[in-house]
Amino acid sequence: MSLVLDPVAQDLLFREARTANTFTDEQVTDEQVQAIYDLVKYGPTAFNQTPLRVVLVRSEEARARLLPHMSEGNRAKTGTAPLVAILAADNEFHEELPRLLPHFPQAKDVFFSERSTRESNAGMNSALQAAYFIVGVRAAGLAAGPMTGFDFAGVQKEFLDDDHTPLMIVNIGRPGEDASLPRLPRLDYDDVVTTV
Amino acid sequence: MSLVLDPVAQDLLFREARTANTFTDEQVTDEQVQAIYDLVKYGPTAFNQTPLRVVLVRSEEARARLLPHMSEGNRAKTGTAPLVAILAADNEFHEELPRLLPHFPQAKDVFFSERSTRESNAGMNSALQAAYFIVGVRAAGLAAGPMTGFDFAGVQKEFLDDDHTPLMIVNIGRPGEDASLPRLPRLDYDDVVTTV
Repeated sequence: MSLVLDPVAQDLLFREARTANTFTDEQVTDEQVQAIYDLVKYGPTAFNQTPLRVVLVRSEEARARLLPHMSEGNRAKTGTAPLVAILAADNEFHEELPRLLPHFPQAKDVFFSERSTRESNAGMNSALQAAYFIVGVRAAGLAAGPMTGFDFAGVQKEFLDDDHTPLMIVNIGRPGEDASLPRLPRLDYDDVVTTV
Repeated sequence: MSLVLDPVAQDLLFREARTANTFTDEQVTDEQVQAIYDLVKYGPTAFNQTPLRVVLVRSEEARARLLPHMSEGNRAKTGTAPLVAILAADNEFHEELPRLLPHFPQAKDVFFSERSTRESNAGMNSALQAAYFIVGVRAAGLAAGPMTGFDFAGVQKEFLDDDHTPLMIVNIGRPGEDASLPRLPRLDYDDVVTTV
């Protein structure tokens, strides 16, 4: 009752949405991914740095290069998902800052001249954007299957470069049969929130 | 067109939602925070580790302890926001795993025996949950003002402990006058997404 978001939307994005491990054959189109991006690109990041980058693994050739890097438990679902997205952090995001933060273009040099600072910022802020992306996949009526069980160095070498760090890989599609495990428990409010 | 989420919800959560820098006097109740948590707690994390912890700064005494740690540009808004939340990562989240992952309680020891592994996991997954939390604040019809401009070590010492790392501080309330800067640019789809 304290939420103004429509209950149907609450269910779509959080309450009924589930991580999917199997998918139907229905394709995920570029138009859907573009619509997802055009929604979630507005999610806030520090200094508007928006360091998330996405590699869509569409061709059979690319998928064949990806599968050996997946952990055994993730290989079958990544092999059959209609679309697979590698989410990565751009550690050189500061090069775009003059365009993203036009009222303070000096931020590029004042705050982000050190690579280690950029890496920690890109890690945290691309994770925020990964969460927005997962919410966006659900907003498109699709299921996401986010995974961190893969060889990060191998995926970086195969699909990215030294400036881009893998964050997670997300299977995307419509849920198939027995797509999800039973909902796991969550912590109680009082375990998570304290008031001072 | 490619999204099934109601356009009103799209606007509420992303398109019209803005980071707020000023707020009205209207209070943010514990019931609202509980409703936000009860929605966004379902957002996915790796191994269901859900490492995010939240400290609500409610008392004037606590706020007075917080303000000196805020960067100068954040002090006024944090001083006047109806509610301020410190979001932190619990680096000892694995202690809760037997309860959170009942079908694989060994995960606690198999994957998370090393503190450094826990810290990197807690950092990434609490950032995912921070993004869900921001979306949840908006789902409650409120504005969030997430900030990383503060003395992290000072806030940790004052409000947390060695096992909890600050992630961001979020001002929460209804937007006041001139609450937001003009919307900043975003990267184009083709700058962010590549297909292989």
